[in-house]
Amino acid sequence: MRFKKLALIGCGLIGGSFALALKRANAVDHVSGFSASVKSREKALSLHVIDEAAASIQEAVKDADLVLVAVPVNAMEACLSSIREGMTLNALVMDVGSTKSQITLSAQRAMKERFNCFVPAHPIAGKERHGVEHAEANLFDHHNTILTPSDQSDPEKIELAVQAWTAVGSTVSIMTPNEHDQALAAVSHLPHLIAFAAVNAIAAQDKRDLILSLAGPGFRDFSRIAASAPSVWLDIFLSNQTEVLNQLALFKGAIADFESAMISKDSQAIEHLIETASDIKKNWSPIPPKS
Amino acid sequence: MRFKKLALIGCGLIGGSFALALKRANAVDHVSGFSASVKSREKALSLHVIDEAAASIQEAVKDADLVLVAVPVNAMEACLSSIREGMTLNALVMDVGSTKSQITLSAQRAMKERFNCFVPAHPIAGKERHGVEHAEANLFDHHNTILTPSDQSDPEKIELAVQAWTAVGSTVSIMTPNEHDQALAAVSHLPHLIAFAAVNAIAAQDKRDLILSLAGPGFRDFSRIAASAPSVWLDIFLSNQTEVLNQLALFKGAIADFESAMISKDSQAIEHLIETASDIKKNWSPIPPKS
Repeated sequence: MRFKKLALIGCGLIGGSFALALKRANAVDHVSGFSASVKSREKALSLHVIDEAAASIQEAVKDADLVLVAVPVNAMEACLSSIREGMTLNALVMDVGSTKSQITLSAQRAMKERFNCFVPAHPIAGKERHGVEHAEANLFDHHNTILTPSDQSDPEKIELAVQAWTAVGSTVSIMTPNEHDQALAAVSHLPHLIAFAAVNAIAAQDKRDLILSLAGPGFRDFSRIAASAPSVWLDIFLSNQTEVLNQLALFKGAIADFESAMISKDSQAIEHLIETASDIKKNWSPIPPKS
Repeated sequence: MRFKKLALIGCGLIGGSFALALKRANAVDHVSGFSASVKSREKALSLHVIDEAAASIQEAVKDADLVLVAVPVNAMEACLSSIREGMTLNALVMDVGSTKSQITLSAQRAMKERFNCFVPAHPIAGKERHGVEHAEANLFDHHNTILTPSDQSDPEKIELAVQAWTAVGSTVSIMTPNEHDQALAAVSHLPHLIAFAAVNAIAAQDKRDLILSLAGPGFRDFSRIAASAPSVWLDIFLSNQTEVLNQLALFKGAIADFESAMISKDSQAIEHLIETASDIKKNWSPIPPKS
């Protein structure tokens, strides 16, 4: 597999890293990039993430056999409409959004008769920093990428999508949009909400400066995701609202178990709750640390 | 400052790292170590963390001018009683416990007329792994150590404690036991409780294996502290129960703010909540990562 032209719509951390990783794999001849912000696309060009800064989506997707849309969830539908108007008949189109049910519906509306070219993708990789200047070719190495094709997706396109995400270093799995959104609400969206809330609970206290000055490496790691970009996470929370609220209800139940054991100083119950978590966490094979 | 003999009571991660760091600073001549488990103290000896494995607390503290008690909070009082019986009149005695109000009361009861030799210490450093085999001389580098002396503590002992914790690489600050316990409940104890509960909420779901298989680096870091040792955290939660429950109430309020904004899909409110957390987290100068 080798692509002639990648059209990168949205030259940020994820899109830029995909372009760099595809180049590293020697799997693309030319990368044309478009970002709504002229500054972003020129930065991507000067960093050699893209080979050409396109002035419009239409110009970027012209003759592209691969289109990657790496824009916020709420900008997706408008982007896909423009892509549909300019794309070649045979191009593979993918997004990288963090929620999949709503994006699938948007794509269906926007891409119409070209919807069979669309394979929704979610590379589970990222950093709390955004912007193309943080893009790196190894961002996806050893990380999962989930594809959520519909029954209308062209099987050849699905296979090509698997090859592309494998080429950039990730481990690919396929599931339904709903399975994806449930699991990601549990393992990503709710943890972000919790981290934001935990920082806010400290921020509201008189002694916040003293408290924060005493935070150690445990808090640093626990709250790392609280530095994530507000616009991105607003989109994710709204587009996966139902599943996030479902997971929040389960979490509140787990917190209530702790609280009642703590109030009654029930050592056995508290220790059991800690052990359950500790065992699972220790037996969970973690993503290898980035070198 | 140079100590003739350090008596290390409890040869684990923290105690072992303190001994190694004090040796690195060339600030101690001889280290005698005691652990209730013969295996632990022999491992500490074979790893050259201690120079001599003592058969009892009495033997370890004999002629020691520095005693470090690095045992679980609930074993502290009995240890301090034995130390009092065997210690030289002029030794500095410190603990490394994660809560300070309860330890201060225990020490007062246990050490009686020697209570003026006791300076409670809490080095805010650690790993999710425990045991002397994980001890390292640089564990405290660039990390905070908090001392919570009482008005009965000998000023010379306080000064010596500051010098010792500075020598092992940490930044020392002094506050009251209550200030310490409030701040640590916010920045350490509650985050642990939250991480345990978040993992438990996932563990209780049918799809737990699928969910965990999709966890990325964000979840890995967020939940790292959930692998912490159950016995240690049971002790901490019980010995700082009031402050942990206070902080939990504040956190539940912050979660409720998110939940109501999510239910009403109030974009402005959600974005504001995320921004508050994100700004604080970005402006918080983090502990430098361990090399």
